[in-house]
Amino acid sequence: MAAASGEFDLIARYFAPIAAAFPGALGLKDDAAIFDPPAGSRFVVTADAMVAGVHFMADDPPDLIARKLMRVNLSDLAAKGATPYACLLTICLPSGTEEGWIAAFAKGLAADAAEYAFPLAGGDTTRTPGPLTLSLTAVGLVPASRAPLLRSGAQAGDLVFVTGSIGDAHLGLALQQGEFAGLAGDHRAALIERYRLPQPRVVFGQALAALPGVHAAADVSDGLVADLGHICAASHLAARLEAAKLPLSPAAAAVMTQADVRSRLLTGGDDYEIVFTAAPDAEPALRALAQTQGVRLTALGRMDSGKGVTVVDAAGETISLLQKGYRHF
Amino acid sequence: MAAASGEFDLIARYFAPIAAAFPGALGLKDDAAIFDPPAGSRFVVTADAMVAGVHFMADDPPDLIARKLMRVNLSDLAAKGATPYACLLTICLPSGTEEGWIAAFAKGLAADAAEYAFPLAGGDTTRTPGPLTLSLTAVGLVPASRAPLLRSGAQAGDLVFVTGSIGDAHLGLALQQGEFAGLAGDHRAALIERYRLPQPRVVFGQALAALPGVHAAADVSDGLVADLGHICAASHLAARLEAAKLPLSPAAAAVMTQADVRSRLLTGGDDYEIVFTAAPDAEPALRALAQTQGVRLTALGRMDSGKGVTVVDAAGETISLLQKGYRHF
Repeated sequence: MAAASGEFDLIARYFAPIAAAFPGALGLKDDAAIFDPPAGSRFVVTADAMVAGVHFMADDPPDLIARKLMRVNLSDLAAKGATPYACLLTICLPSGTEEGWIAAFAKGLAADAAEYAFPLAGGDTTRTPGPLTLSLTAVGLVPASRAPLLRSGAQAGDLVFVTGSIGDAHLGLALQQGEFAGLAGDHRAALIERYRLPQPRVVFGQALAALPGVHAAADVSDGLVADLGHICAASHLAARLEAAKLPLSPAAAAVMTQADVRSRLLTGGDDYEIVFTAAPDAEPALRALAQTQGVRLTALGRMDSGKGVTVVDAAGETISLLQKGYRHF
Repeated sequence: MAAASGEFDLIARYFAPIAAAFPGALGLKDDAAIFDPPAGSRFVVTADAMVAGVHFMADDPPDLIARKLMRVNLSDLAAKGATPYACLLTICLPSGTEEGWIAAFAKGLAADAAEYAFPLAGGDTTRTPGPLTLSLTAVGLVPASRAPLLRSGAQAGDLVFVTGSIGDAHLGLALQQGEFAGLAGDHRAALIERYRLPQPRVVFGQALAALPGVHAAADVSDGLVADLGHICAASHLAARLEAAKLPLSPAAAAVMTQADVRSRLLTGGDDYEIVFTAAPDAEPALRALAQTQGVRLTALGRMDSGKGVTVVDAAGETISLLQKGYRHF
């Protein structure tokens, strides 16, 4: 960044346009924003941090870093059935960050702010002697008239469902790190894209939360087994997951012909799908919703009394997993 | 931190107790919080990041780091006249951080959450290869029935007021860096304390925002001249500041007998006082409020048409300042 560019110039040039659609952002000219929920709504609020070298590579394209940050948080909102409202961003920039980098980052932010109607409402920029560090606080709206969809609502006997396909992002990262060199180019591209640019289930989540019989949900960020484990812990229940039913993309299926990576896919993380539990009699309505929205939906387990997630193979034998999911430490 | 302590254990042990008083935090067991403003209220939201080596020293006591983070953000809420509601915290911990450090940090957080009725509602913990990096999103309540107190409302002819004394935190930092070695011990302690533990004007700010004739406000974080400059920029006005009226603490006055540091005090930052503008006929009510609350209040300037902040000496001559305030880059 040019030495002459102070924080306020940067904000006015690159970030204020992303706030222009949201009056509560006060044009990013104040040090606070005004959030006023529409009548009948309340807010769902979540925050995630991302650090270069931990959650993304420092030399990833800046617009993709910005979009991943937005989408990781949008995925949390999606699992709550929330409609995106606005976000606040704090950026700690390494000394010597070029202004061009900031411009490209802001461009990615603007693209997703527009795509998801998720304007920037405020935040902070500062410098750091360390790696690029980002924190986003995401605010969404849910109807005040119904209980929010949480991790804690699962009931014994519920079926476990997951949207989309699982494991693609994990394989995309593995490909970038040199694994599975023999995979065909179109499969490679599909998996890497899935790692780089999550597709949060924002529209599906909103409809899901409105369906009767849907009891608990989480987004799949730490890994399917870990995130279903969060539902188990919060609901004081156990889950039994059938590994053979794991929904795979064509690209992931092609990797499976090379190596038995099923347990890695179950624990890999970064899927940004929704795992949820629902009463068995809700299944027809769920199938209809999934078909309407063109979302793949897989029933792959069941909630029961007990504790923790058990994964079983087609013969009903327990599969032991090396790792239960991404641990942050 | 012990390798066996994962993110979820840490949250349950150290952070969930700080969220216990706030039902919307869902016990920190979900990945989101529910914010539902009381009838007649809306939210003011602000976010600030702090990085070790930039905003505090890595070896500062962890409880003081936590409290400074809370108070820096509470000061932003104070300048908006907002009542603290809840906060979200993202923590990026360097590898090898001891669990004892986290326990002490959480203790500081808990102390200020209790003191300011400002519970923790959510957030994220992750690791970083870089320095400790913290980001807090602070949420406050303001009455929906009146316009919020912003930077942008100043009017030509307004008087400029500031609470408390200015420059103490700047001198406290300078003392820690070895300057002013001859200063008496009690003065030293007072200035260093002011740097380490801000005292945000939360109660005063709420009353201030309710007074007729108070037009614009900002907290003094970047430095008095810089923050009044933000009011000028947002209000499209100029300000004239009388340096001789700068309110000094006894400790700062003692430093002034050693060195002419007045221009440093004007630009030093970290005061966490409130600078605000009000119509001259609001002064009696302001004086009464300040007296009731035991808050020192100083009128030290005037808003006028034009641009930027001019500082004048007792003879009315312009003083040129080396630096207009803390620049984040």
